[in-house]
Amino acid sequence: MKHRKILMVVCDGVSDRPVKEHDGKTPLQVARKPAMDAVARNGVSGTMDVIAPGVVPGSDTAHLALFGYDPYRVYTGRGPIEAAGAGIALHKGDVAFRCNFAHVNDSMKVLDRRAGRIRSGTAALAQALTGMMLGDVEVIFKEGSEHRAVLVLRGPGLDHRVSEVDPHSESAVLEARALSSEAEKTARVLNEFVRRSNEVLSAHQVNTERAAEGLPSANIVLPRGAGSVSELTTLSERDGIRCAGVAGVTLVKGLCRLVGMETPDVRGATGGLDTDYGAKAEAALRLLDRNDLVFVNVKAPDIAGHDGDFRLKVQVIENIDAMLGTMLKDVHEEVLVVLTADHSTPVSVRDHSADPVPVSISGSDSRVDEVRLYDEMSAASGALGRMRGMDLMPIVLGMANRSSKFGA
Amino acid sequence: MKHRKILMVVCDGVSDRPVKEHDGKTPLQVARKPAMDAVARNGVSGTMDVIAPGVVPGSDTAHLALFGYDPYRVYTGRGPIEAAGAGIALHKGDVAFRCNFAHVNDSMKVLDRRAGRIRSGTAALAQALTGMMLGDVEVIFKEGSEHRAVLVLRGPGLDHRVSEVDPHSESAVLEARALSSEAEKTARVLNEFVRRSNEVLSAHQVNTERAAEGLPSANIVLPRGAGSVSELTTLSERDGIRCAGVAGVTLVKGLCRLVGMETPDVRGATGGLDTDYGAKAEAALRLLDRNDLVFVNVKAPDIAGHDGDFRLKVQVIENIDAMLGTMLKDVHEEVLVVLTADHSTPVSVRDHSADPVPVSISGSDSRVDEVRLYDEMSAASGALGRMRGMDLMPIVLGMANRSSKFGA
Repeated sequence: MKHRKILMVVCDGVSDRPVKEHDGKTPLQVARKPAMDAVARNGVSGTMDVIAPGVVPGSDTAHLALFGYDPYRVYTGRGPIEAAGAGIALHKGDVAFRCNFAHVNDSMKVLDRRAGRIRSGTAALAQALTGMMLGDVEVIFKEGSEHRAVLVLRGPGLDHRVSEVDPHSESAVLEARALSSEAEKTARVLNEFVRRSNEVLSAHQVNTERAAEGLPSANIVLPRGAGSVSELTTLSERDGIRCAGVAGVTLVKGLCRLVGMETPDVRGATGGLDTDYGAKAEAALRLLDRNDLVFVNVKAPDIAGHDGDFRLKVQVIENIDAMLGTMLKDVHEEVLVVLTADHSTPVSVRDHSADPVPVSISGSDSRVDEVRLYDEMSAASGALGRMRGMDLMPIVLGMANRSSKFGA
Repeated sequence: MKHRKILMVVCDGVSDRPVKEHDGKTPLQVARKPAMDAVARNGVSGTMDVIAPGVVPGSDTAHLALFGYDPYRVYTGRGPIEAAGAGIALHKGDVAFRCNFAHVNDSMKVLDRRAGRIRSGTAALAQALTGMMLGDVEVIFKEGSEHRAVLVLRGPGLDHRVSEVDPHSESAVLEARALSSEAEKTARVLNEFVRRSNEVLSAHQVNTERAAEGLPSANIVLPRGAGSVSELTTLSERDGIRCAGVAGVTLVKGLCRLVGMETPDVRGATGGLDTDYGAKAEAALRLLDRNDLVFVNVKAPDIAGHDGDFRLKVQVIENIDAMLGTMLKDVHEEVLVVLTADHSTPVSVRDHSADPVPVSISGSDSRVDEVRLYDEMSAASGALGRMRGMDLMPIVLGMANRSSKFGA
């Protein structure tokens, strides 16, 4: 019994609803996508409630489910995932936050939540904050793209259940409150960090220069999305498989790292509409040589969905299809190919929706059902039926001859 | 509302994957099987994850699920099922093992795990061991086919969580260790039993005769597959139905007995390729007169799957079909017929796999879907959808008008 390798391609938000102005079709039904359809035609398909029926998945909770983790058990907030994506090695007990560099006036009123979408100098600003000690709590701080950053608080007795600091509007910075008695210390430390960030950053050279140029100074940090770091069993520990992930978006990259995937930075894989599909395909194929499972996320369809742009979504589907075609040509026939989405982002909704996503799985000895096309409605009549995201990984491991027997 | 009787036929391991060399078809898709197809054509079909999606079922855990028991809750090991199959009446608190008669040298090194596949004299050897007292623990020991046997330890404070004694290779017999503090006594008693089995059997006349013939003596017992006996609610207690089982294999027979089925020894029902299908059909029909549910297991397709023999598997499917045809001809039209498998044993895998199995259910007033053939892919488009093994019995009891109302 030969173990098969697994190539899992997740088209972020590709799943959609029919659009009247386009003959009642979805972008997947309109796009020319021979490679995707080949996966459907040569294997089994179904539709999948990624979290559960009627639940709108976030990208983070969705990917946890796709990797076989119960998001209701392991997910506390986006912070730790962003922090892992930024390359911070997290410890159990850490509390992590996504942050914005923002601009406040002297009375701590937020005038610009993104500090003029500051593009340069944030590394120096972060450098001035990281390493700070707040009592027995260490601050680990790292800049992200533009105004984005991540904060990790490390020390004894921390808890993520604190209220928001970011007012999300032009008003005063909020005081974090403990939402549970165990989080009182964290709320205190967090408020102290925000106050200190204002002190340190206001005096920073990067900001005096910005002021001279008439730009809003990045004179405070607004953390949000607090999450505790639990010890996640890695895929390698849980399933005995060596895994790698190719993703442009920090969030997805972070998630890959949290579950123990090798997640190289691929040049040109931006997580945007301009992502280099060829580079992603090449990286995935290379990683497949030394891994049992390679996961590829392409963010572009989600962006087109959020923009409500049907034609753009069709276009990026065709781009992904070309990338998939390249991979299928080079991939060994023994590899099991899994094609799916993490959630629907219908152009009519311009946001994630709870609509189930199509999934197709094909391998050289997989069963083959009647489904000929990879789209929402065709997949619904497939042999996989209507399944849950958390069942995907067990099913895939089973088809790849990587499951162990229960009983005799 | 008339209660229907139920005939449940389980084709062990019959479910498969497509095989390239056979036009990408499975054995079920190649075999001529008018009776099986009639069940599919006249009823509803679906595919079934016998334990859960992606889980490879053992025959024991699978049958527990098919009978509506949660194997994760009630299954501890194969020992008790084999012991029940050998006809030992088990008590709550017993710990049971499968055993081999084996051949060791003077330094307790295993030279032959099957003592030359000893065929005669094992009843006398077992007689010399059963009834032995080890402190307050009673030994119940019974021979099985060839070198096989079962051991039951009965006494206060026993627990099945002990490590293996059988080295499964040509090396020294292992000392059992307690894998939980509650199992320390059991480990001690088990080691004592193994030591005593060596003393008693070495001196036994059967073995002196074997030695004289140049055959390896069966001079030790190697127990494995420890399991605790819990009190299983019988089908009669749980569902109010009187049940019988027809099976050749000891494991399945044991399972039938554990769930309270009348399980006669049917002459010619061997659990092998040479099983007497006519005798099984006849026994099932006779049992159906005085039972509400009759279960029939045919082991042959599983054997063909383990052998990787496609043509043989097709042949045994046609044999089972003939048996089923005989039964369908004689069975009262009011009987609900259930046709399924306990797991897949693909010829390409030569072992159990996690692939779901086809299931068809037909009765005189059952719904009828579009499925015309009993096979893996045809069933996948049926009205039962993709279901779980544990749901089979409730569905069947419902269709047989044997479920009670929840609410008013």
